[in-house]
Amino acid sequence: MDRNDPTLQDDERPDGGPVHGADDDGVDEAPRHGDRRGDEAKPAEIEHLDEDDRLTREFVEAVREAVHADDDDRVYQLVEPLHPADIADLIELVPAEERVGLGKAIAELMTGEVISELNEHVRDALFEQLSPDAVAQIAEQLETDDAVALIEDLDDADQRAVLAELDPEDRAAIEDALSFPEESAGRLMQRDLVAVPEHITVGNLIDYLRDNSDLTTEFWEVFVVDPAHRPVGACQLSWILRTPRHIPISDVMKRDQTLIPATMDQEEVALRFQKYALISAAVVDSAGRLIGQITADDIVHIIQEEASEDALLMSGAGEGDINQPIRESYTERVRWLIANLGTALIASLIIAAFGAAIEKLVALAVLMPVVASIGGNAGTQTMAVSVRALAMNQLTQSNTLRVLWREMRVAMLNGVTVAALIGGATAFIFEPMLGLVIATAVVINIITAGFAGVAVPVIFDRLDQDPAVASSVFVTMITDSMGFFAFLGLAVASGLVG
Amino acid sequence: MDRNDPTLQDDERPDGGPVHGADDDGVDEAPRHGDRRGDEAKPAEIEHLDEDDRLTREFVEAVREAVHADDDDRVYQLVEPLHPADIADLIELVPAEERVGLGKAIAELMTGEVISELNEHVRDALFEQLSPDAVAQIAEQLETDDAVALIEDLDDADQRAVLAELDPEDRAAIEDALSFPEESAGRLMQRDLVAVPEHITVGNLIDYLRDNSDLTTEFWEVFVVDPAHRPVGACQLSWILRTPRHIPISDVMKRDQTLIPATMDQEEVALRFQKYALISAAVVDSAGRLIGQITADDIVHIIQEEASEDALLMSGAGEGDINQPIRESYTERVRWLIANLGTALIASLIIAAFGAAIEKLVALAVLMPVVASIGGNAGTQTMAVSVRALAMNQLTQSNTLRVLWREMRVAMLNGVTVAALIGGATAFIFEPMLGLVIATAVVINIITAGFAGVAVPVIFDRLDQDPAVASSVFVTMITDSMGFFAFLGLAVASGLVG
Repeated sequence: MDRNDPTLQDDERPDGGPVHGADDDGVDEAPRHGDRRGDEAKPAEIEHLDEDDRLTREFVEAVREAVHADDDDRVYQLVEPLHPADIADLIELVPAEERVGLGKAIAELMTGEVISELNEHVRDALFEQLSPDAVAQIAEQLETDDAVALIEDLDDADQRAVLAELDPEDRAAIEDALSFPEESAGRLMQRDLVAVPEHITVGNLIDYLRDNSDLTTEFWEVFVVDPAHRPVGACQLSWILRTPRHIPISDVMKRDQTLIPATMDQEEVALRFQKYALISAAVVDSAGRLIGQITADDIVHIIQEEASEDALLMSGAGEGDINQPIRESYTERVRWLIANLGTALIASLIIAAFGAAIEKLVALAVLMPVVASIGGNAGTQTMAVSVRALAMNQLTQSNTLRVLWREMRVAMLNGVTVAALIGGATAFIFEPMLGLVIATAVVINIITAGFAGVAVPVIFDRLDQDPAVASSVFVTMITDSMGFFAFLGLAVASGLVG
Repeated sequence: MDRNDPTLQDDERPDGGPVHGADDDGVDEAPRHGDRRGDEAKPAEIEHLDEDDRLTREFVEAVREAVHADDDDRVYQLVEPLHPADIADLIELVPAEERVGLGKAIAELMTGEVISELNEHVRDALFEQLSPDAVAQIAEQLETDDAVALIEDLDDADQRAVLAELDPEDRAAIEDALSFPEESAGRLMQRDLVAVPEHITVGNLIDYLRDNSDLTTEFWEVFVVDPAHRPVGACQLSWILRTPRHIPISDVMKRDQTLIPATMDQEEVALRFQKYALISAAVVDSAGRLIGQITADDIVHIIQEEASEDALLMSGAGEGDINQPIRESYTERVRWLIANLGTALIASLIIAAFGAAIEKLVALAVLMPVVASIGGNAGTQTMAVSVRALAMNQLTQSNTLRVLWREMRVAMLNGVTVAALIGGATAFIFEPMLGLVIATAVVINIITAGFAGVAVPVIFDRLDQDPAVASSVFVTMITDSMGFFAFLGLAVASGLVG
């Protein structure tokens, strides 16, 4: 752990100039560095963000009122202080039918940054109302990766129309990106980067950066390449800033860097960024040539998406976006409800086989859902743990049996505890034998749940299926069926319903 | 969209020196830039990573065999080429009882980076076997945030013992971090950063960085502060590298930066990084003074954790880590199984109230779990969508009613579809009236599920509870109870079991 006084002390200041006050209103003379939100410092009439960084209801209502009143100046005045990400949130929070009016009033504020932050469903709906020419104009403002995200969602005819309107250079870059598979590194990467040959010095590099004003400013590492344009090293900018001008770049760079193949799935890319704590990484084509870079700020979205996707997939909610068109939500979800209907009918068949027993002892009908429900819950718990461990590469062939055995032990402890409670209560309310039957059935079902909760996702993973998607249906089918079968079967076998 | 040829062309190379070949084995003369994994280029005897970047079973088995054979040299030789993150994975993949033997053989490779990548349960178990002195030695190798993560998990007595062994300076930094709430920005931040006064020029800054070799190299922005050490701006390193030496830093910096209060919860910090696409951000104390920085590579772990947590919380699996001690997993999960037992008993009471009807028509017992199961599934779908939208600040007071109405419409579509299927089948197999009853009950239950799936998480959120934690129990209780009540109640009301 090394630590330094992070501030220059007064006596070591490189020059003796006066210290500017904190409220000094210095003018930014380098407007290309953009992104200034200086106006936020002005007191807003209405608090626009709450303590959790969400737009307040009052603010959203004020904007909507102004939109209804066709008071474009007021709308603009309200929205102008917002950060682009908040403008995107505002558009999402306003009802769909008011978005065009809002967009018209704040047209000047609809920058590439706002567009790239917009939820894709909201964006697509807005863009359907624009001409290909207007879409192309917006796409040209965006970075390649954001432009690709915009254009890849259009249908083929619209895609062609927009591409035709683009500058040839931009068109080539976007067409190139679209040639990579969906959700691959090739679509995610930025083509703008800084790459230099190995033999130059730190001083050469700094001069090159100062002399070429058209270079991107969005880079955190400089990539060093060989004559065939293959990466041979990477250099954090802080290393460059701290090294004397005469030192060769090859002495400063790290030779061993994590390279991302352009065809790699974005989920794998995100895992690599996480595993190796990357801020940026070089993307290479199949010949190993440097063709782009991916930066951590793009990756946080992917990680959020991929990690929160599992909860939605396990519940059968599909993409699960509140901005998704209702028809899409319906078709995504109804599939799983129908699958669930199928598995529920298997459970019904098992119950039907014991119909005579239920007629004789209606307590069986009263208690059987308890056994199934507890098993289902225990199975879902284990499944959620396994799905996450698989997603994070923690559960591999090396430890599958160990994890299975671990979960079985947790299941046994859980089973005995819950069985004691429900068995005791049943024995007290109904009769001791029924208590013993339900307790045994609960233990059997929770242990089955523990086994299925590991085995089902692991089997799907081995078959190269996403374990989150289909596991839930199978695990619930197993625990429901086993719950009814164990409970009703034991009731008959024990002679309770002689 | 601006684009440039990312490589220096031959004719614009700042010097005419020979181009080094790609296989040139230049020696890194700046070893402080560390992290070299050049040895990975050597062909390994055994492939250690599979195509998904996971350690292969063969490799893990080879290491375990060498550990069993007490062949420390072989273990070292196998493990040495691995990246620290992979060494951490290896330790996790080996059974707990073999970890000490492995750790002994690769003691020299157990760097701070390996320790900070280790799963916390595995790390805690390993550290219980070490003396406070040994733990302190390891803590001193780590960055403040990693050292804090290590020490905060120890019990109070061990914490004091380790802190007593630390250098006074390190101890002060760690004690300071521990004074902030758990999971807050103050615990997450690094104290090492570069901060400079506003009046200096770009040239002054570069000289300062070159002259102070003890400064951290882990920074991506330079923070500009006023005399009271309050941030007034931030400067991406690429801007500095591209600006002539005589320009004042105040002309290059962005005045408007996102500041993180030290007491902010890490989940909020992660949302800010995501929303504003940050690579690093300044952390300020309650007086607004700069006290640390947080970088995106630390945030990706938080985002992954927080986002995948919801699936575990919703299923009642608690922390849901496969390395967690069994006793902890048991106590976390059994609570929810017992809560589930309670809600299942409410459903049982409803069934019991209709006992006479079931005795007369056993088909009711056969079909009632279908109605409950479908409702539960529909409720879980809607709940997963709402919980995610809440977590991502997409569902706020401004659009709650709109989202509720959206989900009700999806529920109606789903309800009608599923009801038609199950109603038709039931009418065909049993009798038309029972088909009508089950179809109506399914529609009622899926609509109830849609309502509860939004309302329950939103209510928990308004009460400042985590909507993921408790929503599932309530939603399932509502759909189970409503399923049995609607189906059995309609059966009686329709005169089916007269």
